[in-house]
Amino acid sequence: MNNSEVIHGGDVERVCREYGFSPAEVLDYSANINPVPLPKGMRKYLATNLDTITRYPDRDYHQLRNALSHYTGYAPEWIMVGNGATELIYLAARAFELDKVLIPAPSFADFTRAFTTQGCKVDLFPLKEEAGFRLDVENFITAMGKGYEAVVLCNPNNPTGQLLSKTEISEIVSQAKQQGTIVILDETFIEFVDDISQACMLGELGKFSNLLILRAFTKFFGVPGLRLGYCLANPELLHKLRALQEPWSVNALASLLGPWLLEQHEYIAKTRQWITSERPFFLACLKEVEHLKVYDCQANFVLCKLLTKGWNVKALQKSLEGIGIMIRDASSFPYLDEKFFRLAIKDRASNLQLAGELDEILALYEIEE
Amino acid sequence: MNNSEVIHGGDVERVCREYGFSPAEVLDYSANINPVPLPKGMRKYLATNLDTITRYPDRDYHQLRNALSHYTGYAPEWIMVGNGATELIYLAARAFELDKVLIPAPSFADFTRAFTTQGCKVDLFPLKEEAGFRLDVENFITAMGKGYEAVVLCNPNNPTGQLLSKTEISEIVSQAKQQGTIVILDETFIEFVDDISQACMLGELGKFSNLLILRAFTKFFGVPGLRLGYCLANPELLHKLRALQEPWSVNALASLLGPWLLEQHEYIAKTRQWITSERPFFLACLKEVEHLKVYDCQANFVLCKLLTKGWNVKALQKSLEGIGIMIRDASSFPYLDEKFFRLAIKDRASNLQLAGELDEILALYEIEE
Repeated sequence: MNNSEVIHGGDVERVCREYGFSPAEVLDYSANINPVPLPKGMRKYLATNLDTITRYPDRDYHQLRNALSHYTGYAPEWIMVGNGATELIYLAARAFELDKVLIPAPSFADFTRAFTTQGCKVDLFPLKEEAGFRLDVENFITAMGKGYEAVVLCNPNNPTGQLLSKTEISEIVSQAKQQGTIVILDETFIEFVDDISQACMLGELGKFSNLLILRAFTKFFGVPGLRLGYCLANPELLHKLRALQEPWSVNALASLLGPWLLEQHEYIAKTRQWITSERPFFLACLKEVEHLKVYDCQANFVLCKLLTKGWNVKALQKSLEGIGIMIRDASSFPYLDEKFFRLAIKDRASNLQLAGELDEILALYEIEE
Repeated sequence: MNNSEVIHGGDVERVCREYGFSPAEVLDYSANINPVPLPKGMRKYLATNLDTITRYPDRDYHQLRNALSHYTGYAPEWIMVGNGATELIYLAARAFELDKVLIPAPSFADFTRAFTTQGCKVDLFPLKEEAGFRLDVENFITAMGKGYEAVVLCNPNNPTGQLLSKTEISEIVSQAKQQGTIVILDETFIEFVDDISQACMLGELGKFSNLLILRAFTKFFGVPGLRLGYCLANPELLHKLRALQEPWSVNALASLLGPWLLEQHEYIAKTRQWITSERPFFLACLKEVEHLKVYDCQANFVLCKLLTKGWNVKALQKSLEGIGIMIRDASSFPYLDEKFFRLAIKDRASNLQLAGELDEILALYEIEE
């Protein structure tokens, strides 16, 4: 599968090309990015340090990994950085040389592509609509026992927004360890969760030599263009990824801004404040739109299902793009049909605007029995 | 082989850590980077467009590829961008799934690593010291006939600085085409050559469906920290690389600055002016240092050999690092011993300083008989 053929949100340039908007005019609900404005002082910091692009990045990214060490509480040997969490997913898929992995679905499309491009068989474990797309942990553990060398979990999961508890994940990882299965845990949305301490597996990492945790600056710090991700694991496990990584995959500006971003305590506080107040507010607004089924979530996005009769998300998407609003058609995710879409959570004014537009557009249609 | 174990120039941070310099205090002759100051207006352009990091890069990099299309004269379908030429080398090594490749040596270390990490056998074709490290084209073509599925050429070659003519390369690529061998041609230093039209293979690309040309902003535009490379090939050949490339491997700032850099005609003219006058000047200065053998070159770096008795480059390197000057110990390259080192070509004042320091340090030693 060609890189361009994997469907993602956030393709603002396409909408600009097709509808003649400038990027600033587009309200992008398709990519799950923190809408809190970039920290003050970033322009100045970058401009002052621009000469960093005239040098190769430090191949070992010492400063960046030291900053992440401080942020996560793990020694730098436990930390590896990459060109977004995406590079690290692909690297893991190559490094572990696996024949058969199990991935709950719907989930992030590049998990599957990363493994299948390596000739690895990917089996999907269906997250059931009638269970609100929550993972059935017990059944998953049973399935995992059927010879899978690795599983990939995303917590909270994209696009469903569902959260597993630390206890549930520990149960999975612990069982996986006993049977020699690697667990790749994507925590790129974890910093948005209401009670992080009940979900984040960082504190448990020391116990599990089979656990690889993926994190990123992309979502929480709102910088998908920077391409800055990292992962944490036992140094022995990480060594396999290091052996294959290309040099300098994180560019000098990302490497410069990473440590600086981790120090932006005001920005971090504002973001936490925004998500903990805006998430319940936006969910409540959306739930008032009669034609929608809205799934509760613990991330910075919301999965919705259209209840309109004979009308699907492609049509809704087209209507909204015409007025400069992008949503994420979720029908490309396995087990989701053309009734599902995903919305980022943005600022109050935008959220009210979108909820209003949805109400207005959808009111024209009948509700499915 | 671990990424950190491949030796490269440009590790300014190591020298800063070890000797207590700030990056600006170090004179880095180890990485081959254009010393012409970054174009005016870059800081402002970047600061004005910083919001680009709050969006995912365009997955297909339309603007960037259009700009490169204009720069190279090939349609965007013939062009692919990457995280430095390095990403594209590794991608090619994975995409072509080869068993056996032939690479002239000494050359860029990551060529070999890219293929060996794929389990591909790499045979080195020795460039002979007595021939001034020039490739023996006839013998190379004969060797290539022994079942090699691909060859990698670097023109001008790193670290030798030797240039092959367009006629010589065409001869190789043409023979390779007949026998079904892919030619990966690294032209990342080509824009520094005196008579580009006699060496650059861009104009010939249309004829050769087995030719992949690698280029980069890194060297000529002096921005190794930006991580921005590209390659050109027949769309069918490129398709194999596209099928494996991870999404968004070029970050948004690199994608933003690329088209802008290609428009900096004054910077380009200054760079051409600098290299065409400074290269013969620096070569002449170095040739006056009695204890050195200096190889002529057509790149922005010079290969040198110490003629001192019982003294090697490690010792010279240490002396120079103590006064904040980095050189590239070239003994890690195959077929070069501990007498070889590589120097970038920098600005006039720095070049005079380095030549003076070399003369002073080396004068203390006897010359090898």
